[in-house]
Amino acid sequence: MDVDAYMAERLPRIEAEIEARFTGAASDAAGWPESLTGAMRHLLFPGGKRLRPVFALAAAEAVGGPAEAALPLAVAVELIHTYSLVHDDLPCMDDDDERRGRPTVHVAYDEATAVLAGDALLTEAFAALAEGALATGQGERGLLVAAELARAAGAAGLVGGQVDDLLFEAEQTTSGGTDHARLASIHARKTAALFGAAIVGGATLGGANDDERATLATFARDVGIAFQIADDLLDADSEEAASILRLQGLDDAKRGAEALLDRALARIEGWGERAEPLRRLARFAVRRDR
Amino acid sequence: MDVDAYMAERLPRIEAEIEARFTGAASDAAGWPESLTGAMRHLLFPGGKRLRPVFALAAAEAVGGPAEAALPLAVAVELIHTYSLVHDDLPCMDDDDERRGRPTVHVAYDEATAVLAGDALLTEAFAALAEGALATGQGERGLLVAAELARAAGAAGLVGGQVDDLLFEAEQTTSGGTDHARLASIHARKTAALFGAAIVGGATLGGANDDERATLATFARDVGIAFQIADDLLDADSEEAASILRLQGLDDAKRGAEALLDRALARIEGWGERAEPLRRLARFAVRRDR
Repeated sequence: MDVDAYMAERLPRIEAEIEARFTGAASDAAGWPESLTGAMRHLLFPGGKRLRPVFALAAAEAVGGPAEAALPLAVAVELIHTYSLVHDDLPCMDDDDERRGRPTVHVAYDEATAVLAGDALLTEAFAALAEGALATGQGERGLLVAAELARAAGAAGLVGGQVDDLLFEAEQTTSGGTDHARLASIHARKTAALFGAAIVGGATLGGANDDERATLATFARDVGIAFQIADDLLDADSEEAASILRLQGLDDAKRGAEALLDRALARIEGWGERAEPLRRLARFAVRRDR
Repeated sequence: MDVDAYMAERLPRIEAEIEARFTGAASDAAGWPESLTGAMRHLLFPGGKRLRPVFALAAAEAVGGPAEAALPLAVAVELIHTYSLVHDDLPCMDDDDERRGRPTVHVAYDEATAVLAGDALLTEAFAALAEGALATGQGERGLLVAAELARAAGAAGLVGGQVDDLLFEAEQTTSGGTDHARLASIHARKTAALFGAAIVGGATLGGANDDERATLATFARDVGIAFQIADDLLDADSEEAASILRLQGLDDAKRGAEALLDRALARIEGWGERAEPLRRLARFAVRRDR
């Protein structure tokens, strides 16, 4: 199955599961303020490529589990990814007026609503994961996945990466000096950490054992960093791209991403046919070919 | 045991458990950016009365469980309470420069750091709860408590209450009209929801059955709203107090809080000696007498 066919089959289930947080029978969204719901949905529908959720499903399948087991986590990682974009766009952070060709949340609503919509998306992510894991009887594993998701999204992960990214950018404007290791560390936290939580967590909900979890943790880290490099190269207008290109040059960056992808794929080489969607997704994420 | 003695015994354990998130052996705080850690700690040490954490412990004991079982939740509710204060103080929200006699986080650091410190406190709350519940082998119950905490803190609870509070205040400045039911609904979400999660969740981790959980949910709602009224009356300088006093007058408000407290206490009247700390805490929260 190629990536397009795999995603065509999996994406509608992911979309329906995200939508169910807002309109499903178990949702408490009837009690949400209207402006908050609108602001939460603004960047979520239509969203991006839903790459993190699809990775979570593919990881569950790669260890022999059903894709469904990872659906609660798939929703959670997409809500967290979306919250981080809403807050990153704020005037006090990157101050972006547009994203994906549409006004950002603080432009479409206002700044207070954007902060609160981000807070709500982050919080509802844990509700989605916990309720979903409870419903499928995954008490112990659900709690482990929640703990790892929180660590990936927290001060050592996503939030910490954004703090250092802002510091890094402020320093770039006042000095010419750059630091490759530091940029890699920012990427590892801003992108690879949540990729890792999606992939390792998806596999955990799919029944992974400790060895499989450990292998996928390294796999996810390599794929996450390679994805970020590829994304920067594609998006050549961004300041991020400018900084990484200044650091190592276009060709070097491409080679670096390919090397990370090769290393990641080698780690799960012996996992057989059921890991094929995960391999194809990794290639797609880094090379954008199908 | 009076409230002072109870709190004197329990508070050091709560403080140590919160501190352990930053410096404990299981903490990942060594990898947190320094400015982020400072901003997260700013309002947390010294904190407020730690009323929500103490309630969590007392609720665990009220159903015959050990106070320790509720410690992970005690940390989580205090981190969430603190995050909500950090974000509420932001220039785009209540725009407060001081809290508890000290500069607010966005004044002591900057706005971006305050947003991110709040995000990190919220996220680490779920890490604290999930890791703590895993460590004490509470898979299923830990996940249930996490789900309920997320609902209480999310769009139907704390965040939704703040959205409506901002709308309410904006309308107050443009019109003289007030709405008592609406203000009560805001209080229920901004204060009572997190009280409820602390009390019901603490009892759940202490081994509560479904009947006890249901009773405590109504107990917590009454106590939470009564506490908020009492707090507004004490803090007569605040705009919130002005609005509630305008709505019902000082004496009416006092009587309302007393009636809620009486109703709450009646619900757990037959629970015996082990629920005495919970009763005393409720009286203390509403009347401030010991």
